[in-house]
Amino acid sequence: MRLEVVNTGTELLLGQVVNTHVAYFGDQLLPLGIRIQRQSTIPDGAVIGDLLREVFPRTDVVLITGGLGPTSDDVTREEVADLLGRDLRLDESLVEHIRSIFARYGRTMPESNARQAMVPDGAVVLDNPLGTAPGLYFPAQAGEHPHLFILPGPPRELKPMFQNEVLPRLKTMVEGTGRVTTFRNLRVVGVGESQLAEVLEPALLEIGGMEIGYCARLGEVDVRVIGPVDRLDQAEALVRRHFPDQLVNADGRSLEATLVSVLAERQLWLATAESCTGGMIASKVTDVPGASTVFRQGYVTYANEAKTELLGVPAPLLAEHGAVSEAVARAMAEGALQRAGTDCAVAVTGIAGPGGGTPSKPVGTVYIAVACRDRETFAKRFQFVGERLGFKERTTRMALELVRRRILGLDPNA
Amino acid sequence: MRLEVVNTGTELLLGQVVNTHVAYFGDQLLPLGIRIQRQSTIPDGAVIGDLLREVFPRTDVVLITGGLGPTSDDVTREEVADLLGRDLRLDESLVEHIRSIFARYGRTMPESNARQAMVPDGAVVLDNPLGTAPGLYFPAQAGEHPHLFILPGPPRELKPMFQNEVLPRLKTMVEGTGRVTTFRNLRVVGVGESQLAEVLEPALLEIGGMEIGYCARLGEVDVRVIGPVDRLDQAEALVRRHFPDQLVNADGRSLEATLVSVLAERQLWLATAESCTGGMIASKVTDVPGASTVFRQGYVTYANEAKTELLGVPAPLLAEHGAVSEAVARAMAEGALQRAGTDCAVAVTGIAGPGGGTPSKPVGTVYIAVACRDRETFAKRFQFVGERLGFKERTTRMALELVRRRILGLDPNA
Repeated sequence: MRLEVVNTGTELLLGQVVNTHVAYFGDQLLPLGIRIQRQSTIPDGAVIGDLLREVFPRTDVVLITGGLGPTSDDVTREEVADLLGRDLRLDESLVEHIRSIFARYGRTMPESNARQAMVPDGAVVLDNPLGTAPGLYFPAQAGEHPHLFILPGPPRELKPMFQNEVLPRLKTMVEGTGRVTTFRNLRVVGVGESQLAEVLEPALLEIGGMEIGYCARLGEVDVRVIGPVDRLDQAEALVRRHFPDQLVNADGRSLEATLVSVLAERQLWLATAESCTGGMIASKVTDVPGASTVFRQGYVTYANEAKTELLGVPAPLLAEHGAVSEAVARAMAEGALQRAGTDCAVAVTGIAGPGGGTPSKPVGTVYIAVACRDRETFAKRFQFVGERLGFKERTTRMALELVRRRILGLDPNA
Repeated sequence: MRLEVVNTGTELLLGQVVNTHVAYFGDQLLPLGIRIQRQSTIPDGAVIGDLLREVFPRTDVVLITGGLGPTSDDVTREEVADLLGRDLRLDESLVEHIRSIFARYGRTMPESNARQAMVPDGAVVLDNPLGTAPGLYFPAQAGEHPHLFILPGPPRELKPMFQNEVLPRLKTMVEGTGRVTTFRNLRVVGVGESQLAEVLEPALLEIGGMEIGYCARLGEVDVRVIGPVDRLDQAEALVRRHFPDQLVNADGRSLEATLVSVLAERQLWLATAESCTGGMIASKVTDVPGASTVFRQGYVTYANEAKTELLGVPAPLLAEHGAVSEAVARAMAEGALQRAGTDCAVAVTGIAGPGGGTPSKPVGTVYIAVACRDRETFAKRFQFVGERLGFKERTTRMALELVRRRILGLDPNA
């Protein structure tokens, strides 16, 4: 099945916003065996009509994003209706939905938003529980146009709509073609992409009959395999054999969600003590619904005085070793463990940059320590490459991962 | 001047890699007044010929990325030469350059890499100090093809080549046309996109002679205006008149960067006390380089006991009002102010969901309090819609914004 993506949005071409829709779609479509043939971005405005005229003859499905908002530069709905020769009609139940979203904020719906409730004849409305812009679906008309899905631009509105309204329809279309494959995502933390590929690739190719892909994020690589279930089982066993300590899960959940489950199953409490990550570790843990069953408190100790006051790190220790040191990381973790009265505590101290580096401790140096009751405190130095935010993310991921390994009795040095 | 971007790379369509080239180009081209008219992504392989045939007639410049590598799926050089009817010749000095790059890593150049030294007739070689793939530039041929720049895919090789080899040439071309426009980004926090548009749109249209766009994120809207400087000044004055308290900046910096500047200029220290955001506010503040001049410590008090122990919130107050209440938000902020010994403290307590809501305090309810020395503590209830992560982001943004308004003496209720 041929599929194209059309992104509308001047902000995508002006450099203000990175287009993450394409990678998201690609990732979501892969398990269905659907590949994006071509992707185009155009500015807001009437040019979408010209582009769609080119796209229609060469594809079966078009995913269109953006231009469903209430402002004058949002014209996707009207331009597509015009191109397909459909009239627009006000959908009263949609007006009510939009009104209710404004009411939730204690506000009155501006009249300009009523435009979002205009539905072209023959279009199916795709529900948007998180925003005022409903999506639209035009089933294919032979000889006229392919299947058209129009989705809102903001990722947090687009993603649930894609999951709930688009994927099931595409699945049905693909099943109609008799091409069904399954998919598994093997998430590995703390191993580089090329090292992973070097070790796994020959053996994966030997299993055969699968499509293999790698997706590397900061400090985390997903090995994606697509094929029949028995092959995927073999692939998973292979990864588990080579990387028993680093394979976080095979179900696509985030590292933090996996960690919260691991803690909750064992009824363990975690505390965080953060310097260079500035609260990001605690924030990630509390991204997971139900985090309150494993997390009660965290300390953001950015300054030396804060490390001493809040965590009891001795001032002479800071003076002797410097804030970015193994000794201080250990003292932070043990201080947090004791003061928070938890079962485990994780601490990080490092140099996020751009300033603050020295020859022996350049920007990107970080010490991570994990202290648990009845177990020796573990600490390790890492050297991460990349700018400030990337450094914070890598450090956060590794900190969560070391807690997971420590609790499961896996090798934290792996 | 019309410009299009063509990105080649299967990984961009499979969801493995987010395409950051487009945002980078857009950002770099804006000061020259050059807009990307259209951007397309295609897989590796021969399809690039078909796409370029479509693109040539409708543009003055094409920026092509990727497909210059040594492996069999890298065919951009050969396909473009074929399309333009140019022969390829081995450039001996390029072979030497590639050999020297391998030598730097103590390795011998594989013979497959010699392909990268093949240069089409009439093409200008663009130097690549950081990699083995040289870029190529084909000056426009009237009636035949527009200006073509071919750049390597890896961002760390592409960016210096774009800076050194492409931008100067584009600048010369633009100066030839005498068309220079500028750009301003007016960032407004705490006003809905449609409310903003309703108030501003008629007046902005009346100023005229500008292009206007809106980009909404959670709790934040950018009003983008492009045109001559005097028009942009008028637009900025207009936004400032209507939203004096909510206009965060006109320079494109993030809210957190603006807040850190505001604090640093006044030599003020900020502390954070977070329940439902779980550390996200502190993490955002410390995303800004130099945050250590305004931020020393933060408290993540997820559980009631933590609010009492770390911030001194009286247990009876928690029992009487509940953790999600104005009284507790105030007590958290004042406790943080006192214990951290800072000039300001911000506290949030709310219900991120999906569980924990009640009829009087549904999911999305949050109280934000700002306590400053020598000023009455301010607190306000908000009701945000959306899932857990969106709620955390909106709350974080509003918390940062209320601190900014409080320090600048603006109306926090605006």
